Amino acid sequence: MVSRGKFITLEGVEGVGKSTNLQFITQWLNDRKIPFVQTREPGGTPLAEQLRALLLTRREEVVDPMAELLMVFAARAQHLAQVIVPALQRGDWVVCDRFTDATYAYQGGGRQLDRTRIEQLEQAVQGDLRPDKVLLLDLDPETGLRRAGRKGVADRFESEHLAFFHRVRSAYHARAQAFPGRYAIVDASQPLEQVQRALGQELAHLL
Amino acid sequence: MVSRGKFITLEGVEGVGKSTNLQFITQWLNDRKIPFVQTREPGGTPLAEQLRALLLTRREEVVDPMAELLMVFAARAQHLAQVIVPALQRGDWVVCDRFTDATYAYQGGGRQLDRTRIEQLEQAVQGDLRPDKVLLLDLDPETGLRRAGRKGVADRFESEHLAFFHRVRSAYHARAQAFPGRYAIVDASQPLEQVQRALGQELAHLL
Ligand SMILES: Nc1ncnc2c1ncn2[C@@H]1O[C@H](COP(=O)(O)OP(=O)(O)OP(=O)(O)O)[C@@H](O)[C@H]1O
Ligand SMILES: Nc1ncnc2c1ncn2[C@@H]1O[C@H](COP(=O)(O)OP(=O)(O)OP(=O)(O)O)[C@@H](O)[C@H]1O
Ligand SMILES: [Mg+2]
Ligand SMILES: [Mg+2]
Repeated sequence: MVSRGKFITLEGVEGVGKSTNLQFITQWLNDRKIPFVQTREPGGTPLAEQLRALLLTRREEVVDPMAELLMVFAARAQHLAQVIVPALQRGDWVVCDRFTDATYAYQGGGRQLDRTRIEQLEQAVQGDLRPDKVLLLDLDPETGLRRAGRKGVADRFESEHLAFFHRVRSAYHARAQAFPGRYAIVDASQPLEQVQRALGQELAHLL
Repeated sequence: MVSRGKFITLEGVEGVGKSTNLQFITQWLNDRKIPFVQTREPGGTPLAEQLRALLLTRREEVVDPMAELLMVFAARAQHLAQVIVPALQRGDWVVCDRFTDATYAYQGGGRQLDRTRIEQLEQAVQGDLRPDKVLLLDLDPETGLRRAGRKGVADRFESEHLAFFHRVRSAYHARAQAFPGRYAIVDASQPLEQVQRALGQELAHLL
């Protein structure tokens, strides 16, 4: 029987460097010949990517926070069934750009939805599956948004006001405090080289 | 203070005559100068209609039943917030082509998802709001599918096997037994005129 692969997620507000550092992590895994799947949320399957597009599009219609939460978990259920669970079961590692901690941060912290709603859905959709390591890239939202802003037009989340992102960051901190063993907080205001040295150390602990 | 409008839903398997009889009901309401909103599920707002399209499209990817359930309730949360609740609050009646009983029938009966999952989501999304009257057009699925088949290419639900629709019909019957006061079962194998006479009697009880 193959042992289950490790499940690693990258978290943090806009522009902290999740996508940039995902490349570093996949290189690190390649160097060690560890088989892995690289993916992202919301998304990761054709249907889940279509849900992502619905979630990110700016629209006239006010999106009900509960509708948003359910769309996020619908995409996640599909992603888990089609991609994540099969990969972990065959022994691959999974590296995912955002996962359920982002839901606690954005829909819980940002949109101020009741946390018990999120916990119920997490249990219903994931059962006992949780990431083995959440790599939280921590940065003040002003700097993150400035970095992200260079990429073009803001999506429905990126166009939120600053207070929203401060709540998101606080919610990430609260998660890290509640699950210290699962979380690794990396100071993302450092030069990329130092960020990646810290990430490499966290990954080494997982071997 | 205006009194809350009545909330009426039309239910039944494919081709029983929901859409046909919705026109009869709106005519009945117009004749009595009762203000109403006519809508449908999944759908009823731009976002919810986009979710409907994702739900109905036939696709290569196997759709996880839980993902399907969450998409249905995401569309419903949006529809309630934007359309149904405001309409009922201003005193309009709402006539809706399918609602949560269809979720119990299709995702519960058809897909055999655990009923307590559906109940939890119903409570989370609707609070105490339930239809005042569920008009269940009852018909054997063979006849219904034959009627519906005249309309063109089958969608992702219509292309299910017959056993699926027998489970859907049984689940509707179980709902009607569990909530006899809320449900009215109308024999949809009768000529349209008789179906509509029966529907008119049910509507008259609501006045
Ligand atoms: N440590 C760093 N120092 C300075 N700039 C950085 C650092 N890390 C990433 N960047 C730059 O910040 C920008 C945003 O990075 P990236 O797209 O990886 O962030 P992200 O967290 O994936 O953002 P989003 O949430 O919008 O997807 C890029 O231009 C990237 O080169
Ligand atoms: N009582 C009836 N007797 C015979 N034919 C009927 C009756 N009611 C409806 N029909 C016909 O059956 C077909 C399907 O009706 P309709 O589209 O209203 O069903 P529906 O329940 O809305 O189906 P769907 O679930 O596919 O939306 C139509 O051609 C309609 O004219
Ligand atoms: Mg990114
Ligand atoms: Mg119809």
